[in-house]
Amino acid sequence: MADKIAPEGAKGTDDPQAGVRPGEIRAALPDTADASVYFIGRIRTSWTERRDCPRNAAEARETGAVCTIELDPRWRDALRGVETCSHLVVLYWMDRSRRDLAVQVPSHYKEGRGTFALRSPARPNPIAMSVVRLEGIDGCRLSVVGIDCLDATPLIDIKPYFASVDAIPDAVVGWHADRKR
Amino acid sequence: MADKIAPEGAKGTDDPQAGVRPGEIRAALPDTADASVYFIGRIRTSWTERRDCPRNAAEARETGAVCTIELDPRWRDALRGVETCSHLVVLYWMDRSRRDLAVQVPSHYKEGRGTFALRSPARPNPIAMSVVRLEGIDGCRLSVVGIDCLDATPLIDIKPYFASVDAIPDAVVGWHADRKR
Repeated sequence: MADKIAPEGAKGTDDPQAGVRPGEIRAALPDTADASVYFIGRIRTSWTERRDCPRNAAEARETGAVCTIELDPRWRDALRGVETCSHLVVLYWMDRSRRDLAVQVPSHYKEGRGTFALRSPARPNPIAMSVVRLEGIDGCRLSVVGIDCLDATPLIDIKPYFASVDAIPDAVVGWHADRKR
Repeated sequence: MADKIAPEGAKGTDDPQAGVRPGEIRAALPDTADASVYFIGRIRTSWTERRDCPRNAAEARETGAVCTIELDPRWRDALRGVETCSHLVVLYWMDRSRRDLAVQVPSHYKEGRGTFALRSPARPNPIAMSVVRLEGIDGCRLSVVGIDCLDATPLIDIKPYFASVDAIPDAVVGWHADRKR
């Protein structure tokens, strides 16, 4: 089976501490993986460099930029009924991210937080989740608003967004709320 | 690399059409996978058989059952700050699901829908997403409400739930809304 994702942390170097900021903590990754993922399409955005990319979903939504999800035609039938959804959950694979950081110091926060308290793409399984607004479908191409990834990011899943279970308007992320006070 | 997930559709049989219901459509899976996943823990629930398990997140939440996420201790530091979150996004691997269905006929709907219009565990990448309420953390054990999976289901990610981008209370799944009228 092809494994196009390097399991090690740092890319392009033999030094696992390369790129690790002061205050960040690495975890030892397991020796073997447990399951495998198919890329089922690509996400087309106008952002080709990290510095141009929205930093998060809030910024992506503010830009109002319409992105295109290009689904592998083998999955075309799987779109039946998707056109009736106003919003979708999109899962995608952040294929340029390291996977070994347990504590991270995002440049715009300056403070160490656990990976699972952050939406950073660097995580043991670099799967990003965005809730997007569906603008339209043309064959295997979905036009959506609300994705914050680089152009050609691999798609791994699309799900209908059910407000009854997925919308928790009064949910709180304490550390983030405290920051803004 | 270990690949504990059989890429083929049907389990325990050589007949790929085994278990496919009338109206369901299979897709040919790719010959190779593209990336690999680490299981980072297990989800402990009181459901060991499919017939006992809630059919979806709405039912799981209604039961009020508190489930336990057991995180691999190597990722303990990654929980720093998670305790300040009221709700989390949990991604888990539905390791008993077939991956080759493009159109499915769920037993409680009786009508064919595309996989991407359903939250069924059967999908090309069998990743389930649940929004859960965090009740407490004790070491590497998180108590949560809102998960609908079988006991020992592999965990693959935990994320903070940000209402600002993740909560869309007026989102609509048209085919589902039509059913209820």
